[in-house]
Amino acid sequence: MPDNASPQTDALRVLALPEPLKLDCGETLEHVDIAYESWGTLNEDRTNVVLVCHALTGDQFAGSPNPVTGRPAWWTRIVGPGKAVDTDRFHVIATNVLGGCMGTTGPASKAPDGKPYGTRFPVITIADMVRAQRAFIEALGIDSLFCVIGGSMGGMQALEWAAQAPDQVFTSVPIATSASHSAQNIAFYEVGRQAIMADPDWCEGHYLAEGKRPSRGLAIARMAAHITYVSESALKRKFDRGLQDRERTSFSFDADFQVESYLRYQGNSFVDRFDANSYLYVTRAMDYFDLASRREGRLADVFRGTPVRFCLFSFSSDWHYPPEANRDITRALAAAGAEVSYLDIESDKGHDAFLLEEPIYEKALTGFLSANAELRGI
Amino acid sequence: MPDNASPQTDALRVLALPEPLKLDCGETLEHVDIAYESWGTLNEDRTNVVLVCHALTGDQFAGSPNPVTGRPAWWTRIVGPGKAVDTDRFHVIATNVLGGCMGTTGPASKAPDGKPYGTRFPVITIADMVRAQRAFIEALGIDSLFCVIGGSMGGMQALEWAAQAPDQVFTSVPIATSASHSAQNIAFYEVGRQAIMADPDWCEGHYLAEGKRPSRGLAIARMAAHITYVSESALKRKFDRGLQDRERTSFSFDADFQVESYLRYQGNSFVDRFDANSYLYVTRAMDYFDLASRREGRLADVFRGTPVRFCLFSFSSDWHYPPEANRDITRALAAAGAEVSYLDIESDKGHDAFLLEEPIYEKALTGFLSANAELRGI
Repeated sequence: MPDNASPQTDALRVLALPEPLKLDCGETLEHVDIAYESWGTLNEDRTNVVLVCHALTGDQFAGSPNPVTGRPAWWTRIVGPGKAVDTDRFHVIATNVLGGCMGTTGPASKAPDGKPYGTRFPVITIADMVRAQRAFIEALGIDSLFCVIGGSMGGMQALEWAAQAPDQVFTSVPIATSASHSAQNIAFYEVGRQAIMADPDWCEGHYLAEGKRPSRGLAIARMAAHITYVSESALKRKFDRGLQDRERTSFSFDADFQVESYLRYQGNSFVDRFDANSYLYVTRAMDYFDLASRREGRLADVFRGTPVRFCLFSFSSDWHYPPEANRDITRALAAAGAEVSYLDIESDKGHDAFLLEEPIYEKALTGFLSANAELRGI
Repeated sequence: MPDNASPQTDALRVLALPEPLKLDCGETLEHVDIAYESWGTLNEDRTNVVLVCHALTGDQFAGSPNPVTGRPAWWTRIVGPGKAVDTDRFHVIATNVLGGCMGTTGPASKAPDGKPYGTRFPVITIADMVRAQRAFIEALGIDSLFCVIGGSMGGMQALEWAAQAPDQVFTSVPIATSASHSAQNIAFYEVGRQAIMADPDWCEGHYLAEGKRPSRGLAIARMAAHITYVSESALKRKFDRGLQDRERTSFSFDADFQVESYLRYQGNSFVDRFDANSYLYVTRAMDYFDLASRREGRLADVFRGTPVRFCLFSFSSDWHYPPEANRDITRALAAAGAEVSYLDIESDKGHDAFLLEEPIYEKALTGFLSANAELRGI
């Protein structure tokens, strides 16, 4: 049972970390709950663990429906029996990230004083998220991962794992990601944060204590971000200038266009399942992510001599984390002497392609994981 | 003196249209003021008039400083003595668009009942803006324009003029524009409108009557839009991940990054000079713009047999109105048998390039206007 203001449910599996967690900001979280889910069976050697890392608004329910929100698994195309991340072969684990709002300790959780942290929660980093996952995996009695995999912010975690614990990771699969947030990435998330913080119901971050929720601000943040997840051509293909349930424009500020209706729906449905402060903290962690900065700007130096075997994917129409950002990582890994494969998938689906039907991507990922599983004797 | 709630100043030149203005929505505005500015001298034949059309957040002060805001002229690189739009040769006029907030009748103006229109103002179109300009030009005793020119929304007006009044326009110069808003364009402006309307100080559109202003919502709308005006590479060149007045990240939600500080400044400085309802109305007019829809989707049919001579420009890194959108117009004009030149300018400055130093663009524009001026005997 999570010590967490939202959600309160027995449906979540939660493990309390045995030790306090030291953070990059210098503070220490005395108590950290990690909410997680798993599929498939752990083998005797404990060598078949795949850790799936979720994106900004994802959760631990990669391979089965979320019992709190009722939403289907978010990665059904990739995680499951016979899928690329084959639950007949691997023991697949996913955790809700530190700072999240699906059972893992975050700004909506209760602080030691019994009240929700709100903005008293320390600002966290992607490295902190991975430290929490490492402590969690260790608490489960697992020494190493066969694979750490994720798209978008999940890909940052896959990179961070390889950087922090190269000897505990056999393969790393960062998908549609970046080794550092670009100015444009930061700009988009800053608009979202400002929208949340401009909402009077945000209450300077302490809305839970006040019994309020900055739903309008969070919806706008989601709308702005969502545009970046979809390619211009996909928006054109899906909506173009199509009108919503009407034959002509209404000469009003109603959602005349399908794309407006779609965006409003994306915004409004999001607020029911996500905590506004988590949105601030998790986007901030992404903005702060800059792997190369630890080695004076030389990304290759972060991975020099790594034993980890990498496989990267990008999608041609992804303008959130464009192919170039993934190619930069690949080049640095090659320069570091790492084993690395990289595939840019021709797709018009934009950033979200990593969640959608893309047969070549699925086939290549299946091939990479299965070849390495054989190598590892799984 | 404009009959306008904001701004109230004698510094604005305003002409009241002699007749009521019929709008696309079916309503009629009984009284319309047009605020304008001009430079250079009208020749005896009245054949040397250039109408400069402004973009979403522009105004009539293309060629001289705005006395209300104190801001410099917005198009000094293009409009002035010896510039492409040469005020030694042409009589240059610019008007504030219908629905705007720099003296022309818009939602901040007083309605017949003496109170600000607010959202009682009718929803207008680009065609309505041009109808208002045509009535204004006629009231000045001018029969035809040597040129109608503008970037972004100004380019839409340049196209609309050619469509509405081909015999009154000698040349049309649409720059960095589109013949219809794409789904992505609509999406971005919808985020902005939602941010304004989510601000409690918007007061359902009647904030002026309540003595309030939805400044936070308007600032967020401006931030979101501003990202689209700048290319990803320009953001990287100008800011990358540079920190603002600090040596390391603050582990807070302050503007750690220069790009955050820049965006916040863009948002906060905008609210002092722009009316939130005008933002709603003018963006809506842009969303509704779809020239081809008048001819069952065939843009060429809009211009078939036109005598207007066109010159179009786009900028390679403009992702707001990308080169492709301008090429589509050029193709349609060519198919319609129009005289058309088109130049895609290699630039990393994004959409805003049309306002910035781009020597090839300036030189080509100068050449086009001067060759046509000779042809026209100016």
